[in-house]
Amino acid sequence: MTTAHQSPGETRPGGRTARTRQAVLAAVFQELDEGGFAGLTMEKVAQRSGIHVATLYRRWRCIEGLVCELLTELSSDVPLPDTGSLPEDLRALARSVAAFFGEVRMRALIEAVVSAAARDPQAAAVLRSFFGERLTLAGQMVRRAVDRGELPADTDPEEVMSALGAPFYYRILIARRPVDRRLAESAATAVWAAARAGAYGTKDGCDVADDMSPGGGEAADGTAAGAGVPSNDTSPGGR
Amino acid sequence: MTTAHQSPGETRPGGRTARTRQAVLAAVFQELDEGGFAGLTMEKVAQRSGIHVATLYRRWRCIEGLVCELLTELSSDVPLPDTGSLPEDLRALARSVAAFFGEVRMRALIEAVVSAAARDPQAAAVLRSFFGERLTLAGQMVRRAVDRGELPADTDPEEVMSALGAPFYYRILIARRPVDRRLAESAATAVWAAARAGAYGTKDGCDVADDMSPGGGEAADGTAAGAGVPSNDTSPGGR
Repeated sequence: MTTAHQSPGETRPGGRTARTRQAVLAAVFQELDEGGFAGLTMEKVAQRSGIHVATLYRRWRCIEGLVCELLTELSSDVPLPDTGSLPEDLRALARSVAAFFGEVRMRALIEAVVSAAARDPQAAAVLRSFFGERLTLAGQMVRRAVDRGELPADTDPEEVMSALGAPFYYRILIARRPVDRRLAESAATAVWAAARAGAYGTKDGCDVADDMSPGGGEAADGTAAGAGVPSNDTSPGGR
Repeated sequence: MTTAHQSPGETRPGGRTARTRQAVLAAVFQELDEGGFAGLTMEKVAQRSGIHVATLYRRWRCIEGLVCELLTELSSDVPLPDTGSLPEDLRALARSVAAFFGEVRMRALIEAVVSAAARDPQAAAVLRSFFGERLTLAGQMVRRAVDRGELPADTDPEEVMSALGAPFYYRILIARRPVDRRLAESAATAVWAAARAGAYGTKDGCDVADDMSPGGGEAADGTAAGAGVPSNDTSPGGR
């Protein structure tokens, strides 16, 4: 009972617990590869991994928990650099991310998770919490740069890291073209220049933060035609 | 037969053709709203719009064609500014995009289309061609700025416009938080600073463009564990 959320393998790295975890995560990855998130069930993972389904439910509770652990596991292969220089750190991280998404299966995993989130609130919660944690972690890189005086003191670390990641997800999910080295260089150069220019500062623009959140900038008539029509002033209460 | 790809309404703006088109697109939007792309069929659109299904097939051929036209229709509500200054143009466009995605239904449409693309090659082709056309169109804004001497001559207009859009899709699909005015300001400021710094130049880095395309940066062993491990040099043939 007390092991329900224990991270298996922590206490006995080479033992049966670790082997079980590896077998289960490998099975999840293969199932995602073949059938996407939509077809993923605890039963299929049990069958493929050879681990009893009751064990899966006891350790991971639900399929979203398993996918989250897989994402976390895979992401831990992308190290957070600490070279002493933010532009170098950004470049190194962007290259790692590009290598990570160079494999078609990784693109498929992200597509599967984003699709699942579109249909399933629980999957959406997993996605949000996973990326939230990653951003907080990666934000350390920016906080160190602020301490070194490389960036303005009011720089929002998580906005910087979001901006570094955004071009990759755009490329994969929207443009649907290969992630390449040039994208990594461009993303790193862009974020560094933008951060230096204060684009991710928390002071400027803070007072208009909620102007276009749902309800704020929504077309009054709620029609499809109205949705995209930009008003010259959508922030009546903002200032 | 010759009307198969005619844009209905062009010849008779207020006529029956235009009314048919509006009824059909409204029905597609409502169906997407309720059941997503997965449940969308020509039959359902016919039933909801009151337009005969044979008419739908004759004019739009397939459901992807309909969704593409809806996307195009809605996007035409986001005007491309031409203020004579790129930073102002970027800011105006970013605000329009933020207003566009301020409505929950527009987020749902994008989620539906991206999910569909993850499962269905035809939907993926629609998405790619739609965004390709929009980027080319929006790229005019950047070409004008280059002509005015605001940006380096080798600036890639479509990369600039991709970079402006990326934070919005990241916010919607990955971070899953509301699109707000602050995001618009940050995106516009960031892209302007990055473009000025040459982040979207075609000269630098062109020779390494394909280093990490599928196959190039793929882990040699093809394992999940190997996928995300960044190599220090993934571009052996690049330079």
